[in-house]
Amino acid sequence: MAIKYELIKECKQSGARLGRIQTPHGIIETPIFMPVGTQATVKAMTPEELKDIDAQIILSNTYHLYLRPGHRLVEKAGGLHKFMNWDRPILTDSGGFQVFSLGDLRKITEEGVEFRSHLDGSKHFLSPEKAIEIENALGADIIMAFDECAPYPAERSYVKNSLERTTRWAKRCKEAHSKPDQQALFGIIQGGMYKDLREQSAKEIIDLDFPGYAVGGLSVGEPKELMYEVLEYTTPLMPKDKPRYLMGVGSPDCLIEGAIRGIDMFDCVLPTRIARNGTAMTSLGKVVIKNAKYTEDFSPLDPNCSCNTCKNYSKAYLRHLYKAEEILSARLVTYHNLHFLIELMKNVREAIRQDRLLDYRKEFFEKYGYEI
Amino acid sequence: MAIKYELIKECKQSGARLGRIQTPHGIIETPIFMPVGTQATVKAMTPEELKDIDAQIILSNTYHLYLRPGHRLVEKAGGLHKFMNWDRPILTDSGGFQVFSLGDLRKITEEGVEFRSHLDGSKHFLSPEKAIEIENALGADIIMAFDECAPYPAERSYVKNSLERTTRWAKRCKEAHSKPDQQALFGIIQGGMYKDLREQSAKEIIDLDFPGYAVGGLSVGEPKELMYEVLEYTTPLMPKDKPRYLMGVGSPDCLIEGAIRGIDMFDCVLPTRIARNGTAMTSLGKVVIKNAKYTEDFSPLDPNCSCNTCKNYSKAYLRHLYKAEEILSARLVTYHNLHFLIELMKNVREAIRQDRLLDYRKEFFEKYGYEI
Repeated sequence: MAIKYELIKECKQSGARLGRIQTPHGIIETPIFMPVGTQATVKAMTPEELKDIDAQIILSNTYHLYLRPGHRLVEKAGGLHKFMNWDRPILTDSGGFQVFSLGDLRKITEEGVEFRSHLDGSKHFLSPEKAIEIENALGADIIMAFDECAPYPAERSYVKNSLERTTRWAKRCKEAHSKPDQQALFGIIQGGMYKDLREQSAKEIIDLDFPGYAVGGLSVGEPKELMYEVLEYTTPLMPKDKPRYLMGVGSPDCLIEGAIRGIDMFDCVLPTRIARNGTAMTSLGKVVIKNAKYTEDFSPLDPNCSCNTCKNYSKAYLRHLYKAEEILSARLVTYHNLHFLIELMKNVREAIRQDRLLDYRKEFFEKYGYEI
Repeated sequence: MAIKYELIKECKQSGARLGRIQTPHGIIETPIFMPVGTQATVKAMTPEELKDIDAQIILSNTYHLYLRPGHRLVEKAGGLHKFMNWDRPILTDSGGFQVFSLGDLRKITEEGVEFRSHLDGSKHFLSPEKAIEIENALGADIIMAFDECAPYPAERSYVKNSLERTTRWAKRCKEAHSKPDQQALFGIIQGGMYKDLREQSAKEIIDLDFPGYAVGGLSVGEPKELMYEVLEYTTPLMPKDKPRYLMGVGSPDCLIEGAIRGIDMFDCVLPTRIARNGTAMTSLGKVVIKNAKYTEDFSPLDPNCSCNTCKNYSKAYLRHLYKAEEILSARLVTYHNLHFLIELMKNVREAIRQDRLLDYRKEFFEKYGYEI
């Protein structure tokens, strides 16, 4: 087995889980937020900086790396860890989400998905076997099964068909996986916003016995309350002794609400993407740095933050960098946002340890608000 | 006096000068290369990284900071050092070079230069008094007089008029300078490619008695041999007990040739600009990282370099980052290029110390070539 999950305790107040996952590249503490390094780099950051802010695991994207620079090149470089100089754990997605997002550029069959590259229009084919071949070559510690993420809203019949194909594909992924002792393959539960379909998918996927499970098909445009509702009836179906990963979720409120509903792992481009657009996540809510009110504001982004950005730079300076389109703007705000989410998850873990995550949520939201 | 220059020794082989300048923010060792931080940031770098690679002084641009964010804002922030979190020496230019480069957007009179902002077309006026007012507000350790940098080629009569106005403006700059004990104002010798005009300008500017002198009007499109010739007859006219700054020069060959001709200080956007275009300066010549031949080259940019980029990343990875338009590409190559020039100047200083700069030049060029 490539990974070992240990459930340390459940929060008596909220039911949230405190755990750890041992991987071939070290231990990660859960609940955890995973920064996204789409193209073998977390945008604007170095691996050294990710370590500075205590990032324990990052995610990278199979679709992007397959197209550029190509998984065989990464394999020749010694694998993704060595290629990008990151010696801590990595998780790769399967590329499924990206190819389904291509819309008119892709065609789904039982065999897999034919699609055209967003880079040059070239034709490609991704199947469960191909996705796993790529993920095996990349060499991440945790790899994801090739699934279909149904859109929202979607008809019940569409979602049912889709989840059943996802089960068949999950089985093919498991059979294709050539390195189960080095890479943990996670199954993905689909089923859209339909309770019985989530139950069906959970049963089918869990029957295949993966070392970890993801909840897919959420954060696809549905209201947050609906996402929470789906989590509330889905996570109880999942085994307690394996990690649970909520894909594509990374706003502070969703991280806390997800942990309360029994989720262990999260990822999202949100903190890095909004950083490049000059928006910071802070303990007092979001700060849109280009706003004129910060022109002569010589205070830090977040008065309650200890990161290098907040220690050394003022809002006025960050606003200047943003307006002047300087690379340092993206760097400093990205650093802050990732630090903020990683600290948030540390606080969540500590609150679970102290059986007070609901109290912590209240304290956090009193200052923060829900608006991001 | 804001600064104190000490000539430590002259190279017996080449005549190059080894020295040091004490400034309000610390000592700099000469000959030195100054990275350019146009908009209060050296593009793609943090101040911490500049210190990692032993940058001792950086340059920032008065024209840009005047337009955005405005010198009064920087002054309110506590000055440029504090605004950008750089506690080592800074040099600011006067904005003269930039406004003259605006072409049709500017109009020169004896009083100063009327120009339109490249950002929004708004109308502004820069004069000797205004430039010094801005530089006083920014608070750099070394500030430059407002001069006219004549184009190349230019008629003798144009250059003569221009240098004589530069002298009159230098006098007005000196009179306008309100902080001579905190900021050293350097005069600039012009005169184009005409020996007698360089002599005239040197005499007039040196008569005004500044704490340091620059050679302006070079590296404006003339052949390098012509630049070296001008330096050969200009630097002997300059006092030995004051620093000498060759403006806008930063290719490895020009740095060595300039030092041999008695120059102490250099600046240029070259290493940072070409880095963002994916070109590295290395001990074996330049490396254009996008070239297909580096696709599977897992060796570092420069086999003789000890910088973080060369220690941790391969050409194949850097090529991938460049092709994928990742910010990390600009970061890692900029870091390397600045490290390369700063190491080069360390080697130049050591060679002067050992009276062997001509030998060092030969060794350097045998590997490097002249082609950058």
